[in-house]
Amino acid sequence: MRFELTKEFFETLQGAISADDVAWIKENVCELHEADIAAIIDELEEQGAEYLYRLLDEDTKSEVLVELEEDVRERLLQSFSNKEIADQLENLDSDDAADVIAELPPNQVEEVIGLIEDSEAAEEIVDLLSYAEDTAGGMMQKEFMKVRMEWPVNRCVLELRKQAEEVEKVFTIYVVDEQDKLVGFLSLKRLLFAKPNAPIADLYQNKNMISVKTGVDDEEVAKVMEKYDLVSVPVVDLQGKLVGRITIDDVVDVIKEEADKDFQMASGISEKVESSATVWRISRARIPWLLIGLLGGILGAQVISGFEGGISKVPELAFFIPLIAAMGGNVGVQSAAIVVQSLAKGNDQFGSIWKKIRKETLVGVINGLLLSIIIYAITLIFGTPTLGLVVSISLFTVIMFAAVFGTLIPLLLDKYKVDPALATGPFITTINDVLGLFIYLTIGMLLYGL
Amino acid sequence: MRFELTKEFFETLQGAISADDVAWIKENVCELHEADIAAIIDELEEQGAEYLYRLLDEDTKSEVLVELEEDVRERLLQSFSNKEIADQLENLDSDDAADVIAELPPNQVEEVIGLIEDSEAAEEIVDLLSYAEDTAGGMMQKEFMKVRMEWPVNRCVLELRKQAEEVEKVFTIYVVDEQDKLVGFLSLKRLLFAKPNAPIADLYQNKNMISVKTGVDDEEVAKVMEKYDLVSVPVVDLQGKLVGRITIDDVVDVIKEEADKDFQMASGISEKVESSATVWRISRARIPWLLIGLLGGILGAQVISGFEGGISKVPELAFFIPLIAAMGGNVGVQSAAIVVQSLAKGNDQFGSIWKKIRKETLVGVINGLLLSIIIYAITLIFGTPTLGLVVSISLFTVIMFAAVFGTLIPLLLDKYKVDPALATGPFITTINDVLGLFIYLTIGMLLYGL
Repeated sequence: MRFELTKEFFETLQGAISADDVAWIKENVCELHEADIAAIIDELEEQGAEYLYRLLDEDTKSEVLVELEEDVRERLLQSFSNKEIADQLENLDSDDAADVIAELPPNQVEEVIGLIEDSEAAEEIVDLLSYAEDTAGGMMQKEFMKVRMEWPVNRCVLELRKQAEEVEKVFTIYVVDEQDKLVGFLSLKRLLFAKPNAPIADLYQNKNMISVKTGVDDEEVAKVMEKYDLVSVPVVDLQGKLVGRITIDDVVDVIKEEADKDFQMASGISEKVESSATVWRISRARIPWLLIGLLGGILGAQVISGFEGGISKVPELAFFIPLIAAMGGNVGVQSAAIVVQSLAKGNDQFGSIWKKIRKETLVGVINGLLLSIIIYAITLIFGTPTLGLVVSISLFTVIMFAAVFGTLIPLLLDKYKVDPALATGPFITTINDVLGLFIYLTIGMLLYGL
Repeated sequence: MRFELTKEFFETLQGAISADDVAWIKENVCELHEADIAAIIDELEEQGAEYLYRLLDEDTKSEVLVELEEDVRERLLQSFSNKEIADQLENLDSDDAADVIAELPPNQVEEVIGLIEDSEAAEEIVDLLSYAEDTAGGMMQKEFMKVRMEWPVNRCVLELRKQAEEVEKVFTIYVVDEQDKLVGFLSLKRLLFAKPNAPIADLYQNKNMISVKTGVDDEEVAKVMEKYDLVSVPVVDLQGKLVGRITIDDVVDVIKEEADKDFQMASGISEKVESSATVWRISRARIPWLLIGLLGGILGAQVISGFEGGISKVPELAFFIPLIAAMGGNVGVQSAAIVVQSLAKGNDQFGSIWKKIRKETLVGVINGLLLSIIIYAITLIFGTPTLGLVVSISLFTVIMFAAVFGTLIPLLLDKYKVDPALATGPFITTINDVLGLFIYLTIGMLLYGL
């Protein structure tokens, strides 16, 4: 039942496009789900993409447009006249239309909006464009079903029938008062089984009514919907008037993006890039962290050069430089990751900083002791008992420091409203590298009596 | 409208619990949303949690039970008799009931199921327990609405009214044939506005009908629902019979868990742990990667000890050991992260391995050249032009190797069905550390003519 894009299918399609085999394409591609058609177009070269797109029927065209990757859509839209773009937008939900139009060059936006024939749709888009992209206002759509509290069921059904043309997926019917203020909700299920003359005021629910304000940021919207297991959430303005709704599919995207960002941060990539991006963009996205790593390496070199005399006398001290540096980095990132995740979940309202540091210190003691004992035994193979002592004492100390720093830094970043995930990347590794080296070589000098 | 758990509120509540102030608790806690009550209980000590829980009314109890953190729920259930647990389960959706019961000790499971009075509910739970937890069968619920193709609208409404008591959230009505095979779907909206005597056969849709089989794994379900923007998806058995449905809220959890796992992997944590876990569990979760790091450090020590003679003659070579090791690790993780993310998105059906490696090599050349030039200039501060040459040539070579390995390893892991995210953690850092040291010191020996 589900379509899978295989290499064979793709090659056949490319052949059909070259051969202008419209019949084959109509039968095998145009009937697919919009998401599948979009995935195919994403893979095609520019000309093939445009050719295929123009074979779709009008409704499918709009749906596919929304599903395309951003850069593919951008290229495709360049081949359209402003009138064509305006026609596509009219078929879309207001939030999708606003997202697409926001990607156009500023001077084109006005013109396209002017060409939208349905003045209500145009107004809705203009309204949505006035909200910042990453707020509830920027995410919401204007299509939703609402009824007035004082109506009876049969009037509701009539009114909803009118609204239903606009609204693709109905999850909840919102109930408002005379001032358009949100007062509660009504499930379709309830409406379906109610008596025709029952007043809505007797049917609607308002216990556990969750709504968000237009200005709330998108991550907060995601948290609320996740926490309360909501499929859609109404959006109200400062006066409590119902102005839109946000559906779960848009929130899933926010959750994914948020997670991707944290993962990239942890992996030392500073900008959102797809593996399909150009070589230049990929390079640029990675340079900042590499420069931090380079800086750390240079500071490390400076620390070691300060101990040059000692190392030339006891060259075996150099053997364990990478071990100390790596372990400091690893432990630091581990501690930071735990803190970042629990901050992201927002379930740390009572954990004071000191409680966390105490816990991480204990974990550091356990793991530090275990690893120090192991390394002491192994070091004896390479060198003297003194070296064993230097390495194991340093390792323990470095692990303790790294655990505490790893906990403290993301908490501090979060306190000062910086994304704490920053602390899981090369940033913390670099700090711990340099610190670890200093500790190691200092202990070395002391124990060797240099 | 939304409740926020503050420190003040929490302290007042603890006071009320100590003072046995039932009236205050009923008014201020029991009326909250279940998710908020659960969040409060998660924070309470064992006795307070049990006390508060017992004050809730029966329906709320069950809902709160599902929302609790796993370890809190486990502790709470230990204070219940089997009969009490069975009563709670009856109020729950079948999938939640099965999840809760699966957490009980095996010998208790049978007894609890035997005590469930509603035999249909008991049967549903037993059925759900037979599927592996991380498959569509293990995720689905038995509560859904279905109608037969040959029925008219008015009969459907009657039948649905019966089913509606069971089903909390209706998104789609599934349409089946006489053999209970899924043939299509019907939106509540469509049913609401249809003529009473219209046959379902004329109303239902089957274009773009997406379903999943019971055996499909949870990540695949998440991908399908995300791709097709679904709020619920029907689950069919091997014969195509409708056996359950999965709703988006369960899938959001899968997406989050998946992302968390990747992030933890990238941060070197091998087991799922919350920051609230015990010190022992946290320590255990981190030890595996630290041991790999330790092993890498030991191998590094061995590599360096092989060049001991050279280092004692040119101790300045030791200065840049941490820099080379760190940069190899950083570049490797960056390359791996990009590959892991694009594999996770499943949008790499046409990217051959060689195409990717070519791209990463190009990125490596660009970043490698830039960083090598910078480091050459800086090295001159610490030492001779020879050192500058050694460090910059090694850095370039190490970056190239790391970029290629970083790309290749997750692709290979994925090919052999191992989680590619493994490659973003200390694993790849360690390999690149050791390799980098070898390259660096070898080039050093050659250029210094040692």
